Amino acid sequence: MERATLLRLLRDVARGRLKPDAALHRLRALPAEDLGFARVDHHRTVRCGFPEVIFCAGKTPAQIARIARAIHRAGTPLLATRADRAAFAAIRKVVRGARYHAVARCVTAAAGTDKRRRPAPPELALLSAGTSDIPVAEEARVTAEMLGCRVEAIYDVGVAGIHRLLGHTATLQKARAVIVVAGMEGALASVVGGLVDRPVIAVPTSVGYGASFGGIAPLLTMLNSCAAGVAVVNIDNGFGAGYLAAMMARP
Amino acid sequence: MERATLLRLLRDVARGRLKPDAALHRLRALPAEDLGFARVDHHRTVRCGFPEVIFCAGKTPAQIARIARAIHRAGTPLLATRADRAAFAAIRKVVRGARYHAVARCVTAAAGTDKRRRPAPPELALLSAGTSDIPVAEEARVTAEMLGCRVEAIYDVGVAGIHRLLGHTATLQKARAVIVVAGMEGALASVVGGLVDRPVIAVPTSVGYGASFGGIAPLLTMLNSCAAGVAVVNIDNGFGAGYLAAMMARP
Amino acid sequence: MERATLLRLLRDVARGRLKPDAALHRLRALPAEDLGFARVDHHRTVRCGFPEVIFCAGKTPAQIARIARAIHRAGTPLLATRADRAAFAAIRKVVRGARYHAVARCVTAAAGTDKRRRPAPPELALLSAGTSDIPVAEEARVTAEMLGCRVEAIYDVGVAGIHRLLGHTATLQKARAVIVVAGMEGALASVVGGLVDRPVIAVPTSVGYGASFGGIAPLLTMLNSCAAGVAVVNIDNGFGAGYLAAMMARP
Amino acid sequence: MERATLLRLLRDVARGRLKPDAALHRLRALPAEDLGFARVDHHRTVRCGFPEVIFCAGKTPAQIARIARAIHRAGTPLLATRADRAAFAAIRKVVRGARYHAVARCVTAAAGTDKRRRPAPPELALLSAGTSDIPVAEEARVTAEMLGCRVEAIYDVGVAGIHRLLGHTATLQKARAVIVVAGMEGALASVVGGLVDRPVIAVPTSVGYGASFGGIAPLLTMLNSCAAGVAVVNIDNGFGAGYLAAMMARP
Amino acid sequence: MERATLLRLLRDVARGRLKPDAALHRLRALPAEDLGFARVDHHRTVRCGFPEVIFCAGKTPAQIARIARAIHRAGTPLLATRADRAAFAAIRKVVRGARYHAVARCVTAAAGTDKRRRPAPPELALLSAGTSDIPVAEEARVTAEMLGCRVEAIYDVGVAGIHRLLGHTATLQKARAVIVVAGMEGALASVVGGLVDRPVIAVPTSVGYGASFGGIAPLLTMLNSCAAGVAVVNIDNGFGAGYLAAMMARP
Amino acid sequence: MERATLLRLLRDVARGRLKPDAALHRLRALPAEDLGFARVDHHRTVRCGFPEVIFCAGKTPAQIARIARAIHRAGTPLLATRADRAAFAAIRKVVRGARYHAVARCVTAAAGTDKRRRPAPPELALLSAGTSDIPVAEEARVTAEMLGCRVEAIYDVGVAGIHRLLGHTATLQKARAVIVVAGMEGALASVVGGLVDRPVIAVPTSVGYGASFGGIAPLLTMLNSCAAGVAVVNIDNGFGAGYLAAMMARP
Amino acid sequence: MERATLLRLLRDVARGRLKPDAALHRLRALPAEDLGFARVDHHRTVRCGFPEVIFCAGKTPAQIARIARAIHRAGTPLLATRADRAAFAAIRKVVRGARYHAVARCVTAAAGTDKRRRPAPPELALLSAGTSDIPVAEEARVTAEMLGCRVEAIYDVGVAGIHRLLGHTATLQKARAVIVVAGMEGALASVVGGLVDRPVIAVPTSVGYGASFGGIAPLLTMLNSCAAGVAVVNIDNGFGAGYLAAMMARP
Amino acid sequence: MERATLLRLLRDVARGRLKPDAALHRLRALPAEDLGFARVDHHRTVRCGFPEVIFCAGKTPAQIARIARAIHRAGTPLLATRADRAAFAAIRKVVRGARYHAVARCVTAAAGTDKRRRPAPPELALLSAGTSDIPVAEEARVTAEMLGCRVEAIYDVGVAGIHRLLGHTATLQKARAVIVVAGMEGALASVVGGLVDRPVIAVPTSVGYGASFGGIAPLLTMLNSCAAGVAVVNIDNGFGAGYLAAMMARP
Repeated sequence: MERATLLRLLRDVARGRLKPDAALHRLRALPAEDLGFARVDHHRTVRCGFPEVIFCAGKTPAQIARIARAIHRAGTPLLATRADRAAFAAIRKVVRGARYHAVARCVTAAAGTDKRRRPAPPELALLSAGTSDIPVAEEARVTAEMLGCRVEAIYDVGVAGIHRLLGHTATLQKARAVIVVAGMEGALASVVGGLVDRPVIAVPTSVGYGASFGGIAPLLTMLNSCAAGVAVVNIDNGFGAGYLAAMMARP
Repeated sequence: MERATLLRLLRDVARGRLKPDAALHRLRALPAEDLGFARVDHHRTVRCGFPEVIFCAGKTPAQIARIARAIHRAGTPLLATRADRAAFAAIRKVVRGARYHAVARCVTAAAGTDKRRRPAPPELALLSAGTSDIPVAEEARVTAEMLGCRVEAIYDVGVAGIHRLLGHTATLQKARAVIVVAGMEGALASVVGGLVDRPVIAVPTSVGYGASFGGIAPLLTMLNSCAAGVAVVNIDNGFGAGYLAAMMARP
Repeated sequence: MERATLLRLLRDVARGRLKPDAALHRLRALPAEDLGFARVDHHRTVRCGFPEVIFCAGKTPAQIARIARAIHRAGTPLLATRADRAAFAAIRKVVRGARYHAVARCVTAAAGTDKRRRPAPPELALLSAGTSDIPVAEEARVTAEMLGCRVEAIYDVGVAGIHRLLGHTATLQKARAVIVVAGMEGALASVVGGLVDRPVIAVPTSVGYGASFGGIAPLLTMLNSCAAGVAVVNIDNGFGAGYLAAMMARP
Repeated sequence: MERATLLRLLRDVARGRLKPDAALHRLRALPAEDLGFARVDHHRTVRCGFPEVIFCAGKTPAQIARIARAIHRAGTPLLATRADRAAFAAIRKVVRGARYHAVARCVTAAAGTDKRRRPAPPELALLSAGTSDIPVAEEARVTAEMLGCRVEAIYDVGVAGIHRLLGHTATLQKARAVIVVAGMEGALASVVGGLVDRPVIAVPTSVGYGASFGGIAPLLTMLNSCAAGVAVVNIDNGFGAGYLAAMMARP
Repeated sequence: MERATLLRLLRDVARGRLKPDAALHRLRALPAEDLGFARVDHHRTVRCGFPEVIFCAGKTPAQIARIARAIHRAGTPLLATRADRAAFAAIRKVVRGARYHAVARCVTAAAGTDKRRRPAPPELALLSAGTSDIPVAEEARVTAEMLGCRVEAIYDVGVAGIHRLLGHTATLQKARAVIVVAGMEGALASVVGGLVDRPVIAVPTSVGYGASFGGIAPLLTMLNSCAAGVAVVNIDNGFGAGYLAAMMARP
Repeated sequence: MERATLLRLLRDVARGRLKPDAALHRLRALPAEDLGFARVDHHRTVRCGFPEVIFCAGKTPAQIARIARAIHRAGTPLLATRADRAAFAAIRKVVRGARYHAVARCVTAAAGTDKRRRPAPPELALLSAGTSDIPVAEEARVTAEMLGCRVEAIYDVGVAGIHRLLGHTATLQKARAVIVVAGMEGALASVVGGLVDRPVIAVPTSVGYGASFGGIAPLLTMLNSCAAGVAVVNIDNGFGAGYLAAMMARP
Repeated sequence: MERATLLRLLRDVARGRLKPDAALHRLRALPAEDLGFARVDHHRTVRCGFPEVIFCAGKTPAQIARIARAIHRAGTPLLATRADRAAFAAIRKVVRGARYHAVARCVTAAAGTDKRRRPAPPELALLSAGTSDIPVAEEARVTAEMLGCRVEAIYDVGVAGIHRLLGHTATLQKARAVIVVAGMEGALASVVGGLVDRPVIAVPTSVGYGASFGGIAPLLTMLNSCAAGVAVVNIDNGFGAGYLAAMMARP
Repeated sequence: MERATLLRLLRDVARGRLKPDAALHRLRALPAEDLGFARVDHHRTVRCGFPEVIFCAGKTPAQIARIARAIHRAGTPLLATRADRAAFAAIRKVVRGARYHAVARCVTAAAGTDKRRRPAPPELALLSAGTSDIPVAEEARVTAEMLGCRVEAIYDVGVAGIHRLLGHTATLQKARAVIVVAGMEGALASVVGGLVDRPVIAVPTSVGYGASFGGIAPLLTMLNSCAAGVAVVNIDNGFGAGYLAAMMARP
């Protein structure tokens, strides 16, 4: 669309419908809907294949609702992460059909035009090392499902009981990408990386105590993985992992 | 048992009682009771000599209670660490005879079959440098006693008054292993390491302020101990120290 | 193959060709060629789609050569990273046709059976922010090409001259995945992430000085990227990025 | 004034109006109004071109009010940063016409003699990468306006949608200095630095999560900026950036 | 120029001299001379008021010389920092009149058209805390002088002998900006910030030992300066400070 | 006393009043009153010239009161630091005449025998850089006064207004030791170190924000002080500074 | 022995053979052979079950040789770690039969009286994750063998190929303690901890690059191990692990 | 002297011998001999009781010699630290009688007028934990002796053999201050702090490996010492400790 807009503008100039000066002005002001405190980037769907996501932390419910309405009106699907119930309440008033995922702390709303689902969605595997890592994993699941993937979730399969994991090797090996969510020492990603021939997206979590340092320990573990094929996203960034896995899984 | 199970399975295949395909399936799915959000690893008792411990931080009372019941039903002793009173209340409803250790923040319940105590339990010494380190030390004590050890606890013997410690040298020297719990600068472990000929398990605590950095200072002190024979566990990890000491002390 | 081997073994047991005890033994000892100081994992090609790679740092030329020969004899392609000229000299003696990539510090050798190239290799884009980042980028390029990809490299397009980058938007948008190699402040990954709808693999480099801290600065930048769809590998890990991109690009 | 005071004192000595001993005493005790817990440095306006600013964090409302009154009575403009509503309430009682800027968390009051505004105030551009960075940006805006600048604020133009920024290039290029406020990875400063020929003052914010580490990530990004002409102030230090920009913009 | 080029291009489209498609192509490919391993951004002089600077660390003498020649041929002044004698030797062969500044480790060459110096160059003050900080200070001096400033350098005036500094207050107060170069604890910047009413650019150096941690100590000191009006550049970044000061000093 | 006790014991052995075995036992068990959770080291007064101080953080009011009573009963002066009002309330019940210092968060009680004050107490100077550093400074003052010193406190004399400090040079120069309490960048200690010929005890405080990192910035500044004669204690450790200064000041 | 010496001394006092004053003097000066620059602690064998070990780093060959001779003459076995060939050459001249272990960088010499080996030495398992970790592992092996253990070494069994490890489960399970040496991400310790019911001593190594930070990554991984029963020693501290394992394995 | 100079100047003004303007100029330019690259602060002897010390690291032999000559000519004693043999050779040419202390890496030269030694020099105790800490300890010894102290050095008394230390308690208790030099975990300072009633100056050294992190481990240990009365100087800063101890010991 951006390319089309640009070409149309240049054609208007060529046809004398638009003055060079006016064209220059337009070229400089690419469309980004200005809400005063936030700019909704409607081109993003075109440019990156997915609309803007609302990262709710640090925004007021009123701000969140205004952004959500702007996105929803543009006819694109909506995803709001790190959303508490107050944020959901505010969104629900302006976006009909918005749904709250309590564990994942996400709000989603399908776009009107989003119904034509792809016949065979790509498959992802999603592992969590412990029970406490589940909220981050769920954020990844909600995100990836929003983006049209099917997600096979296997929780609480940390490396201290390696046999629990090995029993799921078949599931892992048929996935297009594997998301591994782990706190404490984060060793699960390395073990999984050695079992599969698909990309592994590792999400360190801030679950742990003492020398975990809020997730630094699993982050370093994952960055230093002796298994090739492991990429890392930010601590607790379930959204980023789900987004990235969906991007990878797209045919 | 795992070995036995495996051999039996192979014998069933050999005798034609089990198809290779079915055997393959079973081999992949080793027993781990699936509670949806957590997998209780009943093989662990066999494999590691002790059942799974519930690390309560980050779990809801309902989740804790469900895991506790699953462990208890399997006839193994129960230990839940970092348990607040709400967790205890939830456990007590499903595990008869569960007991709360307030300072140690632990819940314990003996297994039905756990009564035959070893005639002469191995002896451990447990030191804390200060009064504020006692909760972590108590977590170690409860854990080690659950695992059949006798624990001699000597608290508040930090190195600023080295004579307080030296008066207990005899007790230290007859223990099979010594646990040293210390915050602030954590120097106690090195001094003890130079006094005994048994393994010293050092537990740094987050007790302190300023440049203690939540336990980094004693952690580094202990890792750099000039005394040989000192091993370190995570900050505030009383459970880990008690578990390890009990493992070492086993004949 | 592993699955096949396992099934065959179980069938042998079913047919009485193999005793359960012997089968048990074999199940425990999966093939890994033992060179005394290193175990070459020939199953890895099957399990992960690529042979073991030799990470030469910390190994003697003699050790490297022995591992290289073992890999090469198994008929799989060879990749040795962080290889200096001494390592190459040692490999060349045992692997005919080995080739040295000086800037990338890699040695490669095609497998005998590797010739049937895929008709239309997947395409990757590879960016470096500065001239000094090129060696790491080249390690990524050599790796990805070994794995059957075509790589479009665009170097020295850091964000201080954003127009240099924007001129290449078309190339970026048709790639299946984009590798971004950047030191100093590492901002390139975020900008690229906002321009494309494909996964971005970010490689922080240790290029920089002062508060770059050997690559920590770009590492944190990339982990905290405000653009979704960015995953990070270890500092200077060109190999990891190339490997991962190839995995993603595979149809 | 300080120079004048000093010269006058020396002339008094030369004229015999002041004894050398008394002069010595005065030279040692330069004027700083002593409130017991704080010393208000009235010479500062002369020495540095601006009165003392009250940094409210860690001070009680009563302390803040006493300092504010002392500053106001001296006839200089007042600026109190990190002020909550309680601080404002206390100031309002002693400084007539004090005004609260809620988002910026600042209190301001013009001096009686401050009315003769400069005819053409210097112009600053002020960018924020995200919506959550706005409070820090507003602190910078309030400060710079207090110091006689005109501030053009452009918010939510982070690098993940680089086109939002490029549309404002003209505004940036006519400013005398540009303030860039950014959390997460802080890449905006480098991109802006490459677009303008004026000083860029970068303010990292603690907005972000995970490996942002309370602002360390954008701080390092900005310090390592590959664009020349970027200077950095402390994390969340909107005041410092506004002050510095005003200093630079003065003719 | 960029603006002019763009307008001319649009006028060519308006006049039918250029097809919209071709214009689109040109808009995307802004000029950046491609040397294969580096892109020289000739627009930078226009956009940022100064040509590209060669940061020599991590580049070969041959690469440096090629970039230097490209810059010099474009008729712009040349500055190469972190240049050793080998780099200078390579540059001298392709750029007549290049000059080596040994302490500052810089190479400079005036542009042919650079002769019309501004009649009254803006004045800067440049302080170093110790003797060992001088090389970094000299890098700042060479850079600022290249950019048309006059620099008053006062070295070895650290705060341990505060009177050495106070004797130079007059010089500080008449400068348009002050650069402070300091290692060890870096306290000089705060003291100077309290003495002047002009921007202070603080450069932490890696001079020091022990807990200086390669410049982290003075970096943190300067970022946390209690004096307003202090901005910080990267550790040892004399170039950045000189560049920024010159930008600020421009009328 | 310890020496005397030991000698007496040996004499008792020599005179046959004490059996060697019994003497051995006594030598091992030096007196330390055991309260179960804490050991009060009554020998400390003898060994170190001052009784044990109660560090209240992490202890319950009941524990604090029991320790306080044990110390007080032994006839030694009492000092409890980091004491909140609940701790004071508990102490007051068991120690008559205990006094609460609210800003310093300390409880003190003179010993019955402590009245004979030294005729001319040694003098200390105590500086704080800002108003927010006063609580830590007050902890130092209360401690040093408990130990018989006279303390001249000069608050809010940070280096951003160096003249405020210089006006007090005479006071500094007649003190036997100088305590400098400073947060933010902590530069005050270096400046003072260059003004006096007495030991400077520097106390970094956690006052500050952003890259102060809870006191790391002033801690590093002080450790790296370019002025000789500066020693550092832990962050916010006013007690330690007061104690040390009193030790130094003793004739 | 110390106890015996002490008792004998007291008896001498009781019998009038020794004056109390002289006894006091002796009690204070416990035997430690003074070499001027080092004190050899001959009591250590008695107190800790093993003689002093020479940590050669930072000592001159001459110093090392003098300490070695003092130890050897006392009739105790000798172990010198971090010994280069120069250190070995110096030791060989004064200790007949000293032997150099090149990979482990250790020198050993049996004591004359050390020959009566225990009939059935306790068994240890020793794992290394990679080939580059072998020198540290060998230091552990040499140390443990010096202390009378039998060591089963299994090298290059990192978690990226988990099956290589699983094939050795039987060996692991019959060892009295397991030493795990791992660099990079150090995940091996956690996996092993979940497989065995014996103490696991984890040794992080500085093998790795980038965000391994000289061993911090595996150190944190091991400290945060989700498997209970894992204790950690310092980075690269093979000696400490071997010593500790031998202590644990002693009956 | 400074005070006297100032008073004399003011009297000259009072008597009309000096014009106020000229006096103003002199007041601003306090004497500091300018060598171009360094300013020798001759007032320091007066102000701080000791001349400037040359910190040789980062200075050329020629620079060092010029500073040394300036100091020596002023008739004050000379101390140069971190001096290698080249520095010594350069000094020896300009300062007759200069002496090199090889282990301490210091050069000293007495002043002509320095001969009248105080009849009973104050006594210091100086401890090192290990043999490798001796160079830093020697730097402290040389410094303190230059400043007129008598130093009792006791080396290699680390806490792993606490009895070695306890044998020296008497020596410790009669010293006016104790310097403790320790690397690795640095626990010695805390133990000593609990034994004496005099100030303990702790010097962390960079001796150690692994998680010692170049001295951070002992630095944190010492800062967090549970013994009151311990102050810390920078890592390896033997000079600072010797200087400070001498200041404390002065009557």
